[in-house]
Amino acid sequence: MITGKNYIGNTLSAKGNKTYKTFNPQLNIENEHTFSEATSDEINEAVELAAKAFKSFRSTSGKQKADFLNAIADEILALDDELINVYCSESGLPEGRAKGERGRTVYQLRTFADLVTDGSWVEAAIDTAIPDREPLPKSDIRKMNIPLGPIVVFGASNFPLAYSTAGGDTAAALAAGCPVIVKSHPMHAGTGELVASAIIKAANKTNMPNGVFSNLNSSGIEVGVQLVKHPEMKAVGFTGSIRGGRALFDLAAQREEPIPVFAEMGSINPVIMLPNALKNRSESLAKTYAGSITLGTGQFCTNPGLIIGIKGYDLTNFISTLANEIVKIEPSCMLHPNIYGAYESNKAKALAQPELSVVANYDTDVKENYARQVITTVEGKTFLANTTLHQEVFGPFSMVVQCENIEQMETIISNLEGQLTGTLIADDEAEKYANIISALQNRVGRIIYNGVPTGVEVCPSMVHGGPYPASTDSRFTAVGINSIKRWVRPFSFQDWPNNLLPDELKNENPLGISRNVDGKLTNQKI
Amino acid sequence: MITGKNYIGNTLSAKGNKTYKTFNPQLNIENEHTFSEATSDEINEAVELAAKAFKSFRSTSGKQKADFLNAIADEILALDDELINVYCSESGLPEGRAKGERGRTVYQLRTFADLVTDGSWVEAAIDTAIPDREPLPKSDIRKMNIPLGPIVVFGASNFPLAYSTAGGDTAAALAAGCPVIVKSHPMHAGTGELVASAIIKAANKTNMPNGVFSNLNSSGIEVGVQLVKHPEMKAVGFTGSIRGGRALFDLAAQREEPIPVFAEMGSINPVIMLPNALKNRSESLAKTYAGSITLGTGQFCTNPGLIIGIKGYDLTNFISTLANEIVKIEPSCMLHPNIYGAYESNKAKALAQPELSVVANYDTDVKENYARQVITTVEGKTFLANTTLHQEVFGPFSMVVQCENIEQMETIISNLEGQLTGTLIADDEAEKYANIISALQNRVGRIIYNGVPTGVEVCPSMVHGGPYPASTDSRFTAVGINSIKRWVRPFSFQDWPNNLLPDELKNENPLGISRNVDGKLTNQKI
Repeated sequence: MITGKNYIGNTLSAKGNKTYKTFNPQLNIENEHTFSEATSDEINEAVELAAKAFKSFRSTSGKQKADFLNAIADEILALDDELINVYCSESGLPEGRAKGERGRTVYQLRTFADLVTDGSWVEAAIDTAIPDREPLPKSDIRKMNIPLGPIVVFGASNFPLAYSTAGGDTAAALAAGCPVIVKSHPMHAGTGELVASAIIKAANKTNMPNGVFSNLNSSGIEVGVQLVKHPEMKAVGFTGSIRGGRALFDLAAQREEPIPVFAEMGSINPVIMLPNALKNRSESLAKTYAGSITLGTGQFCTNPGLIIGIKGYDLTNFISTLANEIVKIEPSCMLHPNIYGAYESNKAKALAQPELSVVANYDTDVKENYARQVITTVEGKTFLANTTLHQEVFGPFSMVVQCENIEQMETIISNLEGQLTGTLIADDEAEKYANIISALQNRVGRIIYNGVPTGVEVCPSMVHGGPYPASTDSRFTAVGINSIKRWVRPFSFQDWPNNLLPDELKNENPLGISRNVDGKLTNQKI
Repeated sequence: MITGKNYIGNTLSAKGNKTYKTFNPQLNIENEHTFSEATSDEINEAVELAAKAFKSFRSTSGKQKADFLNAIADEILALDDELINVYCSESGLPEGRAKGERGRTVYQLRTFADLVTDGSWVEAAIDTAIPDREPLPKSDIRKMNIPLGPIVVFGASNFPLAYSTAGGDTAAALAAGCPVIVKSHPMHAGTGELVASAIIKAANKTNMPNGVFSNLNSSGIEVGVQLVKHPEMKAVGFTGSIRGGRALFDLAAQREEPIPVFAEMGSINPVIMLPNALKNRSESLAKTYAGSITLGTGQFCTNPGLIIGIKGYDLTNFISTLANEIVKIEPSCMLHPNIYGAYESNKAKALAQPELSVVANYDTDVKENYARQVITTVEGKTFLANTTLHQEVFGPFSMVVQCENIEQMETIISNLEGQLTGTLIADDEAEKYANIISALQNRVGRIIYNGVPTGVEVCPSMVHGGPYPASTDSRFTAVGINSIKRWVRPFSFQDWPNNLLPDELKNENPLGISRNVDGKLTNQKI
């Protein structure tokens, strides 16, 4: 049941006067529930509870954390249709997507539960003592990853479940042993509260400390700003716009004690079309890309917003087919009138640039908040000279850059801002384009061969992140089990008594985890 | 031979007019050579060379990088007495220390050579395709660590070899595949140039690209500032003061593209003396700590500047023995008149605080630049209330905090700034002090049981770093093989053709490295 209140730890609380409602973009009306924005006192209360909870949660066993994470997954599933209905009413997304995203969310939680059950993720390393070493004896030193402390999570507008309240950032932080305070996304505050209620139920059932999780409503920036500035908060996870992510990064960097911010931000995900591929299959490529550009109304962070090819008959043919194909696709609803409004204004800004041609512009009447897809094209030199054209237009929009030659293509790729993904479309020709591949690799976090960038697998080999501004720290991924590394730090024990060591580092290896002992990986005892 | 010039890649260059000399603190005179500060043009040239070198160096094989690193070690050893003599003349440190530090430097280089020869450090993870997965097929995804790009290294004044020109930061960055530009430390510019000449010789012998390494002279902050702001530089390593490290962190955070800064900064390295230990062996502890506090003239970043115990007879006895013992130790020379000057002024600032008692102050006449050791003591509540007392006094200075009780001790520990190390001195009593240990663990990067914090082993389990301001990012270590993680980012290949993959990710596993394949660690082929 949605109450509109904040979860300050286990307690529902609504002390403030500022309220707001969510919006149904399909029906173009406000939803019924009223949400109460967290007050400054409520925020401080949540932080103090989180800091207190950290004292015990930091040393909670992997097994207990796994029980908690699996219980969250169970409780989310138990919300059943209520969750799916609220999700759809707050996002304009269809039921199938809601269920798919719920599946992903549950899968992520269970994947992290498995990770901490296994326990080897702490990267234990043990160097045993050498008391008779010359000139000095060597101490016994043992290292493992430990949690950073309370984490602030800012959910994503475009993934109300999988990258929001109990999404990837939260699951990874809880798995690490960090309490989480979610700054609830105002566009899906009801979905957020329902998921928060599932987390709180799970925390109570598995005896987690009060404050291990809080959910704070917020329609503006104040709640987030106060959270990020609070000395007890130790890191930030964010998914959203470059402007929003950068603002949080700057706030965190300006603190007396700066804290890490992992912000997964904008990306136009360049797609490089090599000549043979364009020659052999420009029509099928155009069809595939018309689908990828419009998938989820273009609201994926890996949406292909930039297609780069070499000028000529084949590229022209690709462009005209893409234009024809994309206008055949029925426009779909955006997440919120504000997202729709931003799409319209960003599109207008791009279209106002000189020497940009519109090759497809869906101009039939559509329902309110439905996005009309647009394809544009531009010369290589124009694109190079005008960085406004490099900016993301979040929605079903893509730009085809027509290069003079392969050298110009390489220059364009090298001058791109950092990206989440880059895609290479090639037909038995890639080895001839080593410079292109190398330039692309240097600007992105993941490269795809003959595919589409949309679709981000949750697995150990996934990197979702990339050079700035794709993310604020390219050394980490936001998706997959390695995303836990954002919230931990290595810690050494020197000559520490065996009985006082955490189980992960004890001689007898009671957890049976894989450890680096004197340079060799083993799950044996010492 | 020392020329006083900069190494802009392979080329010796001295285009500027600004010059400076190094200083012999033992003799209290300037050294003979004149160093030419890098000009803005020279800096840009070095950066452009580094960016160009990165294009090939980034994909240089582990074997080739190992040859380069081992050749650097060989060339450093070949510098023989010339290096040792210049080191001593520029640091005031004795020959034994110079040789010990050279040994550590060579060991670090060879350790990283071994690491990249083995190759498993790239943390390869492969998830093979599942074409018939429902509802969607699964792509083949493969991940490994790749280098960030050109790195700026700021050497440490207190480790002219091991944490300077070819020290830990440089060795780790080169091992990762990142070109390095060293902002040479002005106090040991001659040592720096000699080591730089060894690196350049090694680069030429092993066919590394020109620009893989540059060494820039600098007596002020301008060279470093220009380097950190340059868009082609991708990360920063620094060892030094909080003020210096924070200034670089701020500069890097304010860039259009922010870059990571790993600064290892100040620390007072608290030592917790538990009651039984103080009761049973306050005298031997006092002797041990008199030695640790004065080791290397107190110029180690892990110097124990803070000792915390519970008020009473045993602590009083410890303090008076420590006072007696420390004045028996002959004062020794500091690194530079500026370091000596800072010691005097920081000491004066501490001693000017109300309610601080001086219990030992070596007041006999000493040579110029020789540091007189000082022990002070203060009440717990005074220490808690006055954060000036928490500031590092770099040199042979330590403060004993006398707590009212164990609760106050816990509060004091919890209120400490982040530290590199914390030490627990205990006699069969530690299990009774879980809260103390937990509080200490939360403020430091390494905890030591019944030892001294000085001495930092180079091994996989070492963490040298800690919560701010011990370092700017507690998620990384500055010492040991894991320090390579500061300079790399994970990167994914999706459905990439086997022949175009880097060797680390090819099906046949030609390097025979350990890889996570479909969730299992193996060195087998696929």
